[in-house]
Amino acid sequence: MARLLKRRAPEIGLPPGTLVHIGERKTETAQLSLMEYSPETCREVRPCTVNQCLPTAETKAVRWINLDGIHDLKLVEELGQAFGVHPLVLEDIVNTGQRPKFEDYGDYIFMVVKMLYLDPEHKEIIAEQVSLLLGRGFVLSFQEAPGDVFDIIRERIRQDQGRIRKMGSDYLAYSLMDALLDNYFVVLERFAENIEWVEDHLVERPSPGILQEVYTLKREAVFLRKCAWPLRELFSALERSGSSLVRKETALYLRDLYDHTIQVVDTVEMFRESISGMLDVYLSSASNRMNEVMKVLTIIATIFIPLTFIAGVYGMNLQIPETNWAWSYPAVWAVMLAVAGGMLYYFRKRRWL
Amino acid sequence: MARLLKRRAPEIGLPPGTLVHIGERKTETAQLSLMEYSPETCREVRPCTVNQCLPTAETKAVRWINLDGIHDLKLVEELGQAFGVHPLVLEDIVNTGQRPKFEDYGDYIFMVVKMLYLDPEHKEIIAEQVSLLLGRGFVLSFQEAPGDVFDIIRERIRQDQGRIRKMGSDYLAYSLMDALLDNYFVVLERFAENIEWVEDHLVERPSPGILQEVYTLKREAVFLRKCAWPLRELFSALERSGSSLVRKETALYLRDLYDHTIQVVDTVEMFRESISGMLDVYLSSASNRMNEVMKVLTIIATIFIPLTFIAGVYGMNLQIPETNWAWSYPAVWAVMLAVAGGMLYYFRKRRWL
Amino acid sequence: MARLLKRRAPEIGLPPGTLVHIGERKTETAQLSLMEYSPETCREVRPCTVNQCLPTAETKAVRWINLDGIHDLKLVEELGQAFGVHPLVLEDIVNTGQRPKFEDYGDYIFMVVKMLYLDPEHKEIIAEQVSLLLGRGFVLSFQEAPGDVFDIIRERIRQDQGRIRKMGSDYLAYSLMDALLDNYFVVLERFAENIEWVEDHLVERPSPGILQEVYTLKREAVFLRKCAWPLRELFSALERSGSSLVRKETALYLRDLYDHTIQVVDTVEMFRESISGMLDVYLSSASNRMNEVMKVLTIIATIFIPLTFIAGVYGMNLQIPETNWAWSYPAVWAVMLAVAGGMLYYFRKRRWL
Amino acid sequence: MARLLKRRAPEIGLPPGTLVHIGERKTETAQLSLMEYSPETCREVRPCTVNQCLPTAETKAVRWINLDGIHDLKLVEELGQAFGVHPLVLEDIVNTGQRPKFEDYGDYIFMVVKMLYLDPEHKEIIAEQVSLLLGRGFVLSFQEAPGDVFDIIRERIRQDQGRIRKMGSDYLAYSLMDALLDNYFVVLERFAENIEWVEDHLVERPSPGILQEVYTLKREAVFLRKCAWPLRELFSALERSGSSLVRKETALYLRDLYDHTIQVVDTVEMFRESISGMLDVYLSSASNRMNEVMKVLTIIATIFIPLTFIAGVYGMNLQIPETNWAWSYPAVWAVMLAVAGGMLYYFRKRRWL
Amino acid sequence: MARLLKRRAPEIGLPPGTLVHIGERKTETAQLSLMEYSPETCREVRPCTVNQCLPTAETKAVRWINLDGIHDLKLVEELGQAFGVHPLVLEDIVNTGQRPKFEDYGDYIFMVVKMLYLDPEHKEIIAEQVSLLLGRGFVLSFQEAPGDVFDIIRERIRQDQGRIRKMGSDYLAYSLMDALLDNYFVVLERFAENIEWVEDHLVERPSPGILQEVYTLKREAVFLRKCAWPLRELFSALERSGSSLVRKETALYLRDLYDHTIQVVDTVEMFRESISGMLDVYLSSASNRMNEVMKVLTIIATIFIPLTFIAGVYGMNLQIPETNWAWSYPAVWAVMLAVAGGMLYYFRKRRWL
Repeated sequence: MARLLKRRAPEIGLPPGTLVHIGERKTETAQLSLMEYSPETCREVRPCTVNQCLPTAETKAVRWINLDGIHDLKLVEELGQAFGVHPLVLEDIVNTGQRPKFEDYGDYIFMVVKMLYLDPEHKEIIAEQVSLLLGRGFVLSFQEAPGDVFDIIRERIRQDQGRIRKMGSDYLAYSLMDALLDNYFVVLERFAENIEWVEDHLVERPSPGILQEVYTLKREAVFLRKCAWPLRELFSALERSGSSLVRKETALYLRDLYDHTIQVVDTVEMFRESISGMLDVYLSSASNRMNEVMKVLTIIATIFIPLTFIAGVYGMNLQIPETNWAWSYPAVWAVMLAVAGGMLYYFRKRRWL
Repeated sequence: MARLLKRRAPEIGLPPGTLVHIGERKTETAQLSLMEYSPETCREVRPCTVNQCLPTAETKAVRWINLDGIHDLKLVEELGQAFGVHPLVLEDIVNTGQRPKFEDYGDYIFMVVKMLYLDPEHKEIIAEQVSLLLGRGFVLSFQEAPGDVFDIIRERIRQDQGRIRKMGSDYLAYSLMDALLDNYFVVLERFAENIEWVEDHLVERPSPGILQEVYTLKREAVFLRKCAWPLRELFSALERSGSSLVRKETALYLRDLYDHTIQVVDTVEMFRESISGMLDVYLSSASNRMNEVMKVLTIIATIFIPLTFIAGVYGMNLQIPETNWAWSYPAVWAVMLAVAGGMLYYFRKRRWL
Repeated sequence: MARLLKRRAPEIGLPPGTLVHIGERKTETAQLSLMEYSPETCREVRPCTVNQCLPTAETKAVRWINLDGIHDLKLVEELGQAFGVHPLVLEDIVNTGQRPKFEDYGDYIFMVVKMLYLDPEHKEIIAEQVSLLLGRGFVLSFQEAPGDVFDIIRERIRQDQGRIRKMGSDYLAYSLMDALLDNYFVVLERFAENIEWVEDHLVERPSPGILQEVYTLKREAVFLRKCAWPLRELFSALERSGSSLVRKETALYLRDLYDHTIQVVDTVEMFRESISGMLDVYLSSASNRMNEVMKVLTIIATIFIPLTFIAGVYGMNLQIPETNWAWSYPAVWAVMLAVAGGMLYYFRKRRWL
Repeated sequence: MARLLKRRAPEIGLPPGTLVHIGERKTETAQLSLMEYSPETCREVRPCTVNQCLPTAETKAVRWINLDGIHDLKLVEELGQAFGVHPLVLEDIVNTGQRPKFEDYGDYIFMVVKMLYLDPEHKEIIAEQVSLLLGRGFVLSFQEAPGDVFDIIRERIRQDQGRIRKMGSDYLAYSLMDALLDNYFVVLERFAENIEWVEDHLVERPSPGILQEVYTLKREAVFLRKCAWPLRELFSALERSGSSLVRKETALYLRDLYDHTIQVVDTVEMFRESISGMLDVYLSSASNRMNEVMKVLTIIATIFIPLTFIAGVYGMNLQIPETNWAWSYPAVWAVMLAVAGGMLYYFRKRRWL
Repeated sequence: MARLLKRRAPEIGLPPGTLVHIGERKTETAQLSLMEYSPETCREVRPCTVNQCLPTAETKAVRWINLDGIHDLKLVEELGQAFGVHPLVLEDIVNTGQRPKFEDYGDYIFMVVKMLYLDPEHKEIIAEQVSLLLGRGFVLSFQEAPGDVFDIIRERIRQDQGRIRKMGSDYLAYSLMDALLDNYFVVLERFAENIEWVEDHLVERPSPGILQEVYTLKREAVFLRKCAWPLRELFSALERSGSSLVRKETALYLRDLYDHTIQVVDTVEMFRESISGMLDVYLSSASNRMNEVMKVLTIIATIFIPLTFIAGVYGMNLQIPETNWAWSYPAVWAVMLAVAGGMLYYFRKRRWL
């Protein structure tokens, strides 16, 4: 539940545009880092100050400024003012309860996405909010904590792999998005393994514990869906936005992102169907097992009840003629066996056994 | 049910535009209050008369007129005529069964929203209807009873916090809406606590009483949804309306309101999924418990039925050879224990124990 | 079922535009009545002939011609020809199986709506088809039987209440629609009382009879929905039609009608959710009761089965040493009580009691 | 299943536009017939050749060419070439697995509709594919077998009833469609009778056989829906097409067709809801009956188990003091009756009886 | 699960546009083949090199280049560069986890479709990804393995059947699509046979094994739907694209493809409804059988329990007067038979037997 509804209480009553950090504080000290590159050069400053991030006049280099730790409101505000960011955008950046979204502010494009991890022990999916600001010649990225899926991009920039050094800030923003989305596939794969594991156990031995696992999977799938679904809209809006910040050659890549998102959403929907099918399998197999138990037990009981009645008859202290006959005992046994055999035959004939 | 369908009976048969108060009377005496402010000045009149609310010629001040107690039809009508409000709008204001909506009348914009409270004892969500009229230089707000979530705004105006004193009446209307929506998050949080409480009790001990609680939660969630869902449409229409009453710099804030509404709606949908998942958990765990009871009890019965049959056989008053043998009693016991053990072994082998 | 599908058999095979009355004949003799009014005058003719209904040259009066009893095909046809109504429209008027709809024929607007009643005894909702034809200076209304919800309007016209005498035929059509819709709220209220009554009985004593009531409510709610749902479309189309027959000042009132319709539809949907919730409550409480019965009974049986076995052992006619001991009888009782107590303790410990 | 998926195997691998008859061959010999009429004249040729169907120069007569037996591919092809029909259209005509659809080819309009029958014995709905080609001055109709619902139209043409002889080929196409749709209502009525019959039997005696009937109804309703649903789209597209082949005065009639289709679709949806309600009723009443059986039987068993235990106690061969008392036998009976009465009282108090 | 989510792990972290084969390697060696034809000539080269595929200047022939084995990344890349294909398209071609889609790149159109097979033994549907590139004068097709449904097309080209040799590359692309879609119908037919087989067995003997089959069918239907659903969008987009690569006379054929797709999608939806109906039938018939077992067994038990009680009474060692009467034994039998008969009569009267 906590993941679904970030406490907003501290924010209530403050004028709009006031920065309040909403969410768990995931790191102690916030750290700003800068990466500046052009086709020829590449420079990293870590940690850096807000002043170091500002563009020196007349450069064609692309600057990527990354902030780990959005709880440091002062730093966020300072950065925001330096790059002319609207207060409402800053408010959204420090509020980790945002829904993935895209907003075009003319001078810059603002995007919020969730970075997903799969906590291997608790089988829970953890989401970290990543905000991206794409401006002319720079990309600002805001994260809740250090550690991300962007190291690949950093390496690619440093070693001048692919075309990234040759392209502009829009391609950098695309690359970051792409890395985030690639990570969704990693999470989906691990999640699929969880589903398969539970599926296998369901067939072997349905137990209430496994049922609990299925419900956990279901809840996680709902969470995944909540994270992935708005991405469709986001990338579709981004592609259609016609913003001058996105060059024509990058637009093609954005269409690719959109395709990937649809694949993610499709897979999540498939998972949901699969999990709800598992629930059906569990319920019907649990009911099958119970029915089997009840059936065998009831059959045993039913065979012995008439026999016990016969024994009871000859246990009566009445003047029963048969009691004096020598062969009555084996005869009674014969009758009893006949009754038991008859019932077993009847059961078998009606396919109850 | 009462909350869902306001009695309209008194209204039936009256010509349209006739004011009839529909809903519970929540306060004794209606009270009108005025707050007039400009970047430099701020003036409050409480209580005030309709005449005091009218604009003095050539002022740039923003006037906020608030009415607590919409059952005072005369006052509402007087106010409406003073500000040139259409009779149908006044009819909507005094009818508390309105659906949240937005209507653009050219000279003024009319909005109806629900203000939510969570009655802590009865675990019920209480809705109060708030109508807003945004005109050039004034905002009229109509409430059912005194006590609201607007004190923060009043304080902000008095103390000149944020930008509110510098902005126009459209920003005031936005601020009121924002305060209302912020309160939705407070209600959602408390509601989430209720859900968690019930969820915890469901796992520990499923009882019919808890089931009743789940159904109550479900009903409240439906009610929440009914209040929140039309807000999407409202704010989307407000943003797109292109009314000259909403300045361009305020439009940005309205987009923020729309985002918040989507968050509210998403959360309510998540609650609904969560609650319906709880029902499934309850039903399957109740059925599990019942099955367990039946299984253990039936197993006990089944073990003893064959034993009782054996005892019955030797209780027959027939000429049974075994009755005369000295070791027959322990032998019968041995047979009985073997039968019981065999059945237990069989049950355990088939995993019924 | 009958309400859902009007027999069309008599119509099959006739050329389109041939008038055939479809539906139950609800009155013996059809009656035409005329009401003519202008701001100054008001005149009623009841019964009247078709000729009397025709406009006298150069009048600005509004004429409202009402026909009770659409089975009188000759009268309908005569009236239709007098006012230049298309044969297909007349066919729709006399066919009571119409879906509520709106059609703009240029010279006149044709609307079909259902007038609802709640038969108090059979708890059934009865629908009567009302067709309205709005033309320039006149409104034709067609009803299946005498007795309607329009007396309020007649009184208002006679006594010059509200603005109706001052407005044109479009306002009259609106007023009739409004009266019809107001009556929907009356029906909804009574229906809500039925729902509450059933809900209260469900909690107190769930019985198959109550279940039958729930299914009746469900069927009625489906019927209500079928009547109310197309009204949304109807009033929305009417508002957007831009017909020259609807003046601008009336358009505002139509928006109000649309709002009311949405309220009706919302309420019906709420009823449906509420009723389907009742079914869930019934099923789970019936299953709870059954489980409780089975549990207590099975527990009693299980306690006595081992005891009966013990008694059976000492009823065997074998040479049992204990039979000769003086204190064996009380000892056996003690064992039995211990077994029974042990099982009760076990049941209580596992919370089955 | 066969009705839902026509075997296409023979067609696989042939170039598009190759005629292959798909579906059952429903008649032996194909027959072509011509009906030519103008306001003054009417001429029928049955059977006729393709050449006879061709228009003689400069006639204003409307020609209706009907083919019974679309398996005669040569005839279909000849006819198609004579009237300049595209090969793909011919392919659709002879493939009976078509979905109802509308296609505007400029010179002619192509429509596929299903003609429905209700096989009274097997309670199955049978669909025959009817293709219509509306061209300037002619209508081609293709049927799978002789026998149709068009005899009414033929009679109307012969006897100059209604306006059909005065109108063009578009009105003829409309009339054929109208006759087809009227027949849908006949099928719906018979189907409604089936539903009512099953509904009555459900209440009286729920049996697995009735359940089978309900599932049959459900399948038929799905089939009906598959046939009726695309008609909405078809007539809506036809109305909007703006084809020069459809005159303005006919367009009004098409709107009527659209209304009828919506009525059909609504009714089918209502049937589906009704049938799914029947399933609920069946399941809950079957479960009620079972519960009742189990309850009464278990109560009987439970009363006798303690009594049998008491009898067992006094059957023990121990030294029981009571055995020697003279009044012990009636005393035991008294105890037994008291126990049985107590349990009955308890059951009744808890409303289990 | 594996079919639903192709492992993407190897791709993570690579720059976009890097070719990585995702999916199973289905053939050892990749093979390129060329088919070049014009109305007069037809030439085949198998295997061929990339250079042989390149267009010789000024030819009007259509070239169809087919690659079996997309894991040969070098070959794919070489081919892509030779025809000027964008790296992202090549990336999509070698990633077999693509969703069917259509993309218009101006100079060429890119389409991804799934080719379906039904593995007869495992009852699983196998999908192979086929990518098509339609350019001016050429079509490139990429397959995972040799063996396809295109032999018909090859034969048609070789023998100059139909119009294929006379038309351009767009008609070739259409023909390939058509062959793929035709194969869908073959798969659907076999799948329908599976459904019928399971349906027949369900009615005869509902067993948990059959339930497993139903769930398998359900999963396959979900998979079918995943493959077929996006085709709607694909062909609809293709038809509307207005690309200059698609000539007007081919557009008509594309509409036909779209119709076929809708038929496929409709059929799959019908299968899904049918399968979910089967689940309902299974569950209710399994529950019916269980209820029948329980009922008969309980009835037997209930009849004998009172009889056993009577026998127990006369087994008591009390001074029972009846024990001394000579006719008491037959009298007790009479009472017992009366009790048993009475209960049977009661059961039969209440229709429990």
